[in-house]
Amino acid sequence: MKTHREIASELLKERILKDGKVYPGNVLKVDSFLNHLIDVELVDQLCMAFYEYYKGTGITKIVTIEASGIAIAYATARLLKVPVIFAKKAKSLNLGDNVYVSRISSYTYDKEYDATISSDYLTKDDKVLLIDDFLAIGNAMKGLIEICDQAGAEIAGICVCIEKGFQNGGDDLRKMGYEVMSLATIESLNDGDITFK
Amino acid sequence: MKTHREIASELLKERILKDGKVYPGNVLKVDSFLNHLIDVELVDQLCMAFYEYYKGTGITKIVTIEASGIAIAYATARLLKVPVIFAKKAKSLNLGDNVYVSRISSYTYDKEYDATISSDYLTKDDKVLLIDDFLAIGNAMKGLIEICDQAGAEIAGICVCIEKGFQNGGDDLRKMGYEVMSLATIESLNDGDITFK
Repeated sequence: MKTHREIASELLKERILKDGKVYPGNVLKVDSFLNHLIDVELVDQLCMAFYEYYKGTGITKIVTIEASGIAIAYATARLLKVPVIFAKKAKSLNLGDNVYVSRISSYTYDKEYDATISSDYLTKDDKVLLIDDFLAIGNAMKGLIEICDQAGAEIAGICVCIEKGFQNGGDDLRKMGYEVMSLATIESLNDGDITFK
Repeated sequence: MKTHREIASELLKERILKDGKVYPGNVLKVDSFLNHLIDVELVDQLCMAFYEYYKGTGITKIVTIEASGIAIAYATARLLKVPVIFAKKAKSLNLGDNVYVSRISSYTYDKEYDATISSDYLTKDDKVLLIDDFLAIGNAMKGLIEICDQAGAEIAGICVCIEKGFQNGGDDLRKMGYEVMSLATIESLNDGDITFK
């Protein structure tokens, strides 16, 4: 019998091949089902894989970053019955001064921004699962790790839907000692062809 | 027997009184359970009210805006078994040129931004439910309406968790002919006391 992880990986890879679009500069667009228009049934299935692996491990919170991580974090948090906290990218007047901050350089948006989480909601008593839609260079994920370190929170693992295996984010994080689960790892996007690892 | 809407309203009002914080300038902070740290169980309950009211009405998509609307939109979309589409606030290099755009003035962030939805994913065949966490002046919601108008999509209704009844967003939208469901309407925040309508 197939595991949830195998089912999720197959579903996601099929969908990427069917609806993903490759653009120059190694850009893979999946905004027709994952990070603009969201296929809720698909995301629920993907998150079953994250749940299956991390259930019973004492996770207290899911940590992600706005915006495209939120739906995936939410769907996983429902299953694990824990809250989600998402790092904010803009300085809200409502957020207050007691915050953890990490400066992140964004490839997709071609700019730098501060990722911020209120220090009221993440502490050394937390054991967190980090979740995002994409892992490429890994800057956003490294920023979330820095924030967790500031809070003294334990990081149980990192779950992403799609990893760009030809960029170094996933390898960096694994070398740093983190367990990274990717449901679809892209080996190359050469000539518009999507090849999985 | 209580309706889901009554249950959701009571749960939300109790939680606002328990954990909401009032700051000068009529600011109500609910970031300990709704829009930074997210109490997933609570949000699932709130969205049952939206689902109960709109099930069977032919909704094809939930439309929201990043970031704090996404979790609520997702939870409602799961129940209605339709996709979510969220308007982006920043110009992503991945979004492409075929977009609907509305300029929005943000009170919370004290700046203007363009809300953008790809024209590939919202059409005149859609019947949408607009969802957000907060309705105050209503600028974000009016921006989403403008985008739906550009797409020719039908708007079935507007669902928000919290409406600031002393600001004019909700009244404006009702005068425009839209059905607005708010689970908790704040009458005043004077002297730090939260009063519901």
